[in-house]
Amino acid sequence: MNKSNELQVLRHSAAHLLAHAVLELFPDTQLTIGPATETGFFYDCLPTRNFKEEDLPIIEKRMHEISQRNLALSHKQISKDQARALYKNNTFKLELIDGLEGETAGISEQGTFYDLCRGGHVASTGDIKYFKLTTISGSYWRADRNGTALQRISGIAFLTQEDMDAYLQHQEDLIKYDHRRLGKQLDLFSFHEEGVGFPFFHPKGKCVLNIMATYMRSMLKKADYQEIETPIMLSDELWRCSGHYDFYKKNMYFSEIDDKNYAVKPMNCPGSILLFKERPRSYRELPMRLNEFGRVHRHELSGVLHGLFRVRTFTIDDTHIYCTYDQIEQEILTNIKIFRTVQKTFGFDDVKIDLATRPEKSMGSDELWGKAINGLKNALDKAGIPYTVQEGDGAFYGPKLDFKIKDSMGREWTCGTIQIDFLMPENFDLHYVAPGGELKRPAIIHQAIYGSLERFFGVLLEHYKGILPFWLAPVQILILTITDDQKVYAQELMEELKLSGMRVEMDHTSDTISGKIKSAQLQKVPWMLVIGKKEVENNTVTLRFFDGSQKPGITKNDVISLATTLIPSY
Amino acid sequence: MNKSNELQVLRHSAAHLLAHAVLELFPDTQLTIGPATETGFFYDCLPTRNFKEEDLPIIEKRMHEISQRNLALSHKQISKDQARALYKNNTFKLELIDGLEGETAGISEQGTFYDLCRGGHVASTGDIKYFKLTTISGSYWRADRNGTALQRISGIAFLTQEDMDAYLQHQEDLIKYDHRRLGKQLDLFSFHEEGVGFPFFHPKGKCVLNIMATYMRSMLKKADYQEIETPIMLSDELWRCSGHYDFYKKNMYFSEIDDKNYAVKPMNCPGSILLFKERPRSYRELPMRLNEFGRVHRHELSGVLHGLFRVRTFTIDDTHIYCTYDQIEQEILTNIKIFRTVQKTFGFDDVKIDLATRPEKSMGSDELWGKAINGLKNALDKAGIPYTVQEGDGAFYGPKLDFKIKDSMGREWTCGTIQIDFLMPENFDLHYVAPGGELKRPAIIHQAIYGSLERFFGVLLEHYKGILPFWLAPVQILILTITDDQKVYAQELMEELKLSGMRVEMDHTSDTISGKIKSAQLQKVPWMLVIGKKEVENNTVTLRFFDGSQKPGITKNDVISLATTLIPSY
Repeated sequence: MNKSNELQVLRHSAAHLLAHAVLELFPDTQLTIGPATETGFFYDCLPTRNFKEEDLPIIEKRMHEISQRNLALSHKQISKDQARALYKNNTFKLELIDGLEGETAGISEQGTFYDLCRGGHVASTGDIKYFKLTTISGSYWRADRNGTALQRISGIAFLTQEDMDAYLQHQEDLIKYDHRRLGKQLDLFSFHEEGVGFPFFHPKGKCVLNIMATYMRSMLKKADYQEIETPIMLSDELWRCSGHYDFYKKNMYFSEIDDKNYAVKPMNCPGSILLFKERPRSYRELPMRLNEFGRVHRHELSGVLHGLFRVRTFTIDDTHIYCTYDQIEQEILTNIKIFRTVQKTFGFDDVKIDLATRPEKSMGSDELWGKAINGLKNALDKAGIPYTVQEGDGAFYGPKLDFKIKDSMGREWTCGTIQIDFLMPENFDLHYVAPGGELKRPAIIHQAIYGSLERFFGVLLEHYKGILPFWLAPVQILILTITDDQKVYAQELMEELKLSGMRVEMDHTSDTISGKIKSAQLQKVPWMLVIGKKEVENNTVTLRFFDGSQKPGITKNDVISLATTLIPSY
Repeated sequence: MNKSNELQVLRHSAAHLLAHAVLELFPDTQLTIGPATETGFFYDCLPTRNFKEEDLPIIEKRMHEISQRNLALSHKQISKDQARALYKNNTFKLELIDGLEGETAGISEQGTFYDLCRGGHVASTGDIKYFKLTTISGSYWRADRNGTALQRISGIAFLTQEDMDAYLQHQEDLIKYDHRRLGKQLDLFSFHEEGVGFPFFHPKGKCVLNIMATYMRSMLKKADYQEIETPIMLSDELWRCSGHYDFYKKNMYFSEIDDKNYAVKPMNCPGSILLFKERPRSYRELPMRLNEFGRVHRHELSGVLHGLFRVRTFTIDDTHIYCTYDQIEQEILTNIKIFRTVQKTFGFDDVKIDLATRPEKSMGSDELWGKAINGLKNALDKAGIPYTVQEGDGAFYGPKLDFKIKDSMGREWTCGTIQIDFLMPENFDLHYVAPGGELKRPAIIHQAIYGSLERFFGVLLEHYKGILPFWLAPVQILILTITDDQKVYAQELMEELKLSGMRVEMDHTSDTISGKIKSAQLQKVPWMLVIGKKEVENNTVTLRFFDGSQKPGITKNDVISLATTLIPSY
């Protein structure tokens, strides 16, 4: 049995253990169903009085007692009528028995407790050791809001104490390093009721966004991308032509200008396309890679808004590549290389690529789809990057690649997409003048590496648990003097380091050095330069890293050259 | 008589000359009025048949003939009745005579021609030599759209041929170097009917905007400004609180979100203020200089839109400084220094500063106004910069400084404002915690150096007549090979120069070298690197400047170091 099956069996058995404990403590409770979940188990019950948070430790304690009794578990098939007799006072179980296929029902037993069940258990209650009850919540019989209201007791269960500790630590980390919490704690951004879902970036947050944009701008420029800027609002005729009006209207904001209906742009493509169409284009101009840091607005229900992960406005590093079908492969190859470089630079080494192919309902000829998908596959093969084909998962207007990065807490994020588009060139009747003088239709490749800069920033914050790497940290160096005697020396050093392009601040408080260090830690500044009498005498500093390790007797030039090694070249 | 009066007299006399010529050629024409203008004169007439463009040279020729007749001009007063008799068939002149004060009317005479007139003429028609008819247009009697439709013949007149030539050259330059024309010619930006008044920036235009933003960002960072980002749309409650809703509503765009009215921001202040108010602020945090490259939208009538000078959306380098009243002077001093450095860097050496003081209707105590105006004056004096006091010209909520730069074509532009604001801190109930723990009201200084980046870009284009200086040019260097044999050498050189951070392109056409040079001139690229057989052999280039001067035998390193001297440090 593999670990996943083993866990499944354990967690299902833990649900029985929970039910057993509940019935011993509250005998008149009616049991309904109690399955295993991804991290544990739950049982939905109809109690005679509502369970409260305070009941959880009592029930958990009884579960441990039953576990210690080490009762053997057995499982048998009985006739449905026998089963109905056992549950004559429980309409839920009677309904379940009626729903069973065949003539028998499975019953699991441990001591005096029995439960209707398909089977698959541990040998003895003693095998269920590492568990914890977590929540009481409301539920409905058969998940039907019009059905009987029930109460759900949920818990977690693991094979070892280590596994459970790791899980609990992970849960704690998820709360502790929630980017919304870090955003407040590190003074990075805020939300205000005057603009629901619209982030306000504080100086330190904007600093990180600027570094991200500068870095991306430089990466794209090296690959001969050209940056453009298109308006935030455009008339709805354009959105009708692009098709967004019909399919995306309820996520768009509108305004009226000179009796015409304008939309606040939810996408950057139509603006880019207008610019491409501004004059006739020659094949010599292709591939034309137009990039925009395009601010879009998309309506989301207020209930699903979630920090920087789900907002109502964000900036996309949005590229539209206008090219011939024969150029797709080379463009994708270049794209993939940029994607991988960017992702590695931000510390994402674990990346998966999904290739989504032609769905049943789609537009465009077999030839176009063939060329596009082959272009994608060949590029991936040439780049030597493994990928998973998601058959039929492409958009109806073209195939795409999705880049999925895994963060330090094991979560997967889709950051970055390359989408080939057959539709927009048709809708906007795009063409270029081919070598022979005839007009031909170009392909459009949509490409976004960060995707939403705001969301990527949020992912980075959680990935790094708020301790941004040196090159991204809004304050890279904090200078701490032991006494005020070192202030002049410190001030001069700060100015010199600033001239070298570093983001340096100084702690001007009259705190003790340990107080200053503690405050720097709270701000998650990567480097502290501690300066006391000795350092001034020797014209050095003590470099203290975030993890507490120290390098004494470092010169200013050492600081600069060490810092330089931490900044990726771009 | 000073030159301005002399010109006035000349131009008024030229109007008589025009009328004289018209009556000789078209005797039944009814004359109405014919004043001098800023650059010449016009006469409004009611002809028996409509004048056409083709009539202008004929009339102008006759004017020259009458000038050559050298007729003496005389002026006399006659009784109104005598005047009415002279004009018995001209209802317009009769109306004018009725409107004259006193009992007499002035009559000017030259040969057989006479005209109703207050006087002030040259001695003889021979004195009117340097003139030109320019346009025929429609006009109305007494400028009343319901009045009689007339025809206006306009012209220019100068004291010397040189003055007229200079004026005509200037007019030609204004057309030739109109930024709208340069924008198209140099592929910098475009406008599209899908977004009236909303500019689309092409790669080369966006490149210049990015340099402008990077430069400003760096200048402000050095002075400890902090960059923030606030939303494009904010709920109208905020705009009611700021007062914009009441006073600026018809220039604002609105949209609805979750049944709430949102405005697309016309100003950046309220967003900045929300961020300031996000948590309690200590006096230790002041002055707090929050800068934003804030994109605003302001409705303008379509008729007044004018390239990048008057648009419906633009980005302001918008700073709000939150400070105590005692800090105003120091802040203004720093501000002024940054303004002057920026303006000089962009080639504007001729700058005027206006200080606008308290208007009759205003808010805020005498003490506040006194402190603020003294702060401004002291700062200007300390900076040693002359200024003009515009008494009572300030906003009702505070005094301000306007920076007026003069461009290469002699026009004055208000680029940059420093505005002290007593109102917003009241409206938003702002405060900071003073050293003693009590809450105090800060001042806000609004500061924008470029003002609108888009407009400043337009001004730069016209100021430099499209030939942007090396550091601002979207393409700094164009590499031209004499034959294809030099392509490999040229390509390598291009890559190396790019790595040094330069914006370099190569002419890949198979044109002759003179054709390539001509095309580079049309693109107004500051430097050409011409590469022939000799250059490859010697591992050099010939550096050709936009003005046609050349430096042969230059090494790659020479190119880089010479280029470096042209880039302002920031």
